[in-house]
Amino acid sequence: MSLLVQKFGGTSVADAERMRLVADSIARNVRRGHQVVVAVSAMGKETDELLRLAAEVSRERPGREMDMLVTAGERKAMALLCMALHDLGVQADSFTGSQAGIVTDTDHTRARILEVRPERLREALDAGRVPVVGGAQGVSTDRDVTFLGRGGTDTTAVALAHALKADVCEIYTDVSGVFSADPRVVPEARRLDRVSFEEMLEMCAAGCPKPAMRSVELARTFGVALHVRSAFTWEPGTWIDEEDPEVEQAIVSAVVSDSSQAKLTVTGVPDRPGIAARLFRALAQRSINVDMIEQNVSIHGTTDISFTVPHDDLAAAEAVVAGLSDEIGATGAIADPEIATVSIVGAGMRTEPGVTAAMFETLAAEGINIEMISTSSIRLTCVVRAELAERAVQSLHRAFELEVA
Amino acid sequence: MSLLVQKFGGTSVADAERMRLVADSIARNVRRGHQVVVAVSAMGKETDELLRLAAEVSRERPGREMDMLVTAGERKAMALLCMALHDLGVQADSFTGSQAGIVTDTDHTRARILEVRPERLREALDAGRVPVVGGAQGVSTDRDVTFLGRGGTDTTAVALAHALKADVCEIYTDVSGVFSADPRVVPEARRLDRVSFEEMLEMCAAGCPKPAMRSVELARTFGVALHVRSAFTWEPGTWIDEEDPEVEQAIVSAVVSDSSQAKLTVTGVPDRPGIAARLFRALAQRSINVDMIEQNVSIHGTTDISFTVPHDDLAAAEAVVAGLSDEIGATGAIADPEIATVSIVGAGMRTEPGVTAAMFETLAAEGINIEMISTSSIRLTCVVRAELAERAVQSLHRAFELEVA
Repeated sequence: MSLLVQKFGGTSVADAERMRLVADSIARNVRRGHQVVVAVSAMGKETDELLRLAAEVSRERPGREMDMLVTAGERKAMALLCMALHDLGVQADSFTGSQAGIVTDTDHTRARILEVRPERLREALDAGRVPVVGGAQGVSTDRDVTFLGRGGTDTTAVALAHALKADVCEIYTDVSGVFSADPRVVPEARRLDRVSFEEMLEMCAAGCPKPAMRSVELARTFGVALHVRSAFTWEPGTWIDEEDPEVEQAIVSAVVSDSSQAKLTVTGVPDRPGIAARLFRALAQRSINVDMIEQNVSIHGTTDISFTVPHDDLAAAEAVVAGLSDEIGATGAIADPEIATVSIVGAGMRTEPGVTAAMFETLAAEGINIEMISTSSIRLTCVVRAELAERAVQSLHRAFELEVA
Repeated sequence: MSLLVQKFGGTSVADAERMRLVADSIARNVRRGHQVVVAVSAMGKETDELLRLAAEVSRERPGREMDMLVTAGERKAMALLCMALHDLGVQADSFTGSQAGIVTDTDHTRARILEVRPERLREALDAGRVPVVGGAQGVSTDRDVTFLGRGGTDTTAVALAHALKADVCEIYTDVSGVFSADPRVVPEARRLDRVSFEEMLEMCAAGCPKPAMRSVELARTFGVALHVRSAFTWEPGTWIDEEDPEVEQAIVSAVVSDSSQAKLTVTGVPDRPGIAARLFRALAQRSINVDMIEQNVSIHGTTDISFTVPHDDLAAAEAVVAGLSDEIGATGAIADPEIATVSIVGAGMRTEPGVTAAMFETLAAEGINIEMISTSSIRLTCVVRAELAERAVQSLHRAFELEVA
């Protein structure tokens, strides 16, 4: 008998039909003798719908009230899922984040879990019942309802798995695992059986949409193994776990692309100490997330600084640069929203020389120009023209022989 | 400075536009220097929508989960209303029933309030904030979320008004008060300035849809005066309060009709002691709400027993009667769904002879046959053919001169 924590995302419970399918799968696990704890997201697009409603009612949307509003979505889903389980003869009880003992800080709309006190869940398990916990929610140290942010149900599942010492944390989603590339772009993409926490975090940072990065961080911190799999096919998916030193690591595991960033280049900046510091401090103060940064070689004592920011932050970043241009002595700024990043990720890159050269050669052979480069020990990222990103992903996937065997 | 408890029903907050109108009205009261506590229902038809969803997902719908599901509606409304208030510069905080300290029994889907511990509401008021409480909800002594039932937001408002020693409890609804008859049936119907608790309870029992009967009972118990008024016109409405012995009571205050009942007649029952007891005990055991009962004069040692039940319970009542017919020796049962009750209510009826005769004469003059009669000290109810009910209401309203002066 194992204790399973199972997370079901919004797509998996989007309507009554799918809700019953999910209940059926949970019921099968219960009948096999497992203890099951469920974390469930709001149905389908309900969270978006609630945000739309808030925007319609009000310009000023205090975080406390936004969290009260948005968590209503998970509340509905968890109650309905319990009803569907009762129909199948499975005794199930829904729990809000507060009832499940998920204590968070007071940072509304993106609260962080401080502690999990799973007494009521334990009681339910001991009584042979299935606790169904509303995802992405908790109660703050001020006794207010909090929301953990988009993708927070993954985080809830990981925190519960850790607190309950679960044998496994299963993340059911609408894809059947983590792939060597986006299968819509690369039809030959392979589902990975196993990815290390570190690789997964680099893939998340490079644009892989699922699972949510924060939950992977938490899983790594707690050493909770994740099993990402499909809620519709039930076939084994991808395990995300500690790197196994006994096993030889793949040099490159996956190719990931991200077109959510834009590039901003500040030109003619005097090449003096402290200039870059002033620029990036000002951006940080406006909560603008800078990802990649590159500074050109100084010519005639001036240099160009390029950096990438999310598209949504581009206008704000331009305003910051414009406000600072006198102070830092820049001659201008060029915004370029038409870029994409293409990354290769693999734990084996650490020990394998020549990967960088192979990536550059592959892109060069396709006539794709590299505009910026950033690296970590297990990731290599290039900025390219947005319209060339798919071709870049396809050629790299081929070059590193990641296809289905 | 007064402390006002204001209840807003689903129609008053059905969309973003109305939500902002309600916020505007609350803001005006705050600016006048009043302290305001709000109890709010789910938006528009949302509760119906949630019930529909539950029926779609599941046949078995445990009360605990139904309550978790349904209370999501008020949760949305209260958060959105707070946001609209913030837009107008009014600091407002939403509170679930649990956060507001509304402790109930464990009778899910129709829980009763045991106690109100309004500490958090008091703190909010003391800090100059407007607490907005989700209607019809509480937390049970088992720490589960409970729903007080349809119309429960009125009950929430009355309980809060009592616990906070409010100066007034205002019930905002989509009509501008309590009328001498349904204005759709009797265009000359008059809005009553004042109705006693007893009259209002009789009117509720006789089919007056608003305010919810249970909240009027609670208001009478606690001596909380209610002011029923329109959320759209803001004109003074109807006060529901203790009967004032100094004021001469109207003989008839209102004419009320109800077509939600059906009649069942059990024929040829032996006229022996204990037969009726056995029948109505069996109906009570099936939780069938019997309203009026009439037993005909015994002819040849047998009698007919007629009673009324809600339409929804008619089939169940027929089954109970069929199952008992051998035991009680009945010869048959006749179901008649095509009936309506017509009632006159007035505190002055107690001391005024001749009201009964006047009612019967009025109906007789219209050629309307009376099929059953039931009375209390301040109410007189007749069962008539359903299709004649509107004419009966109109003629009684005229006969007792209840028109607008």
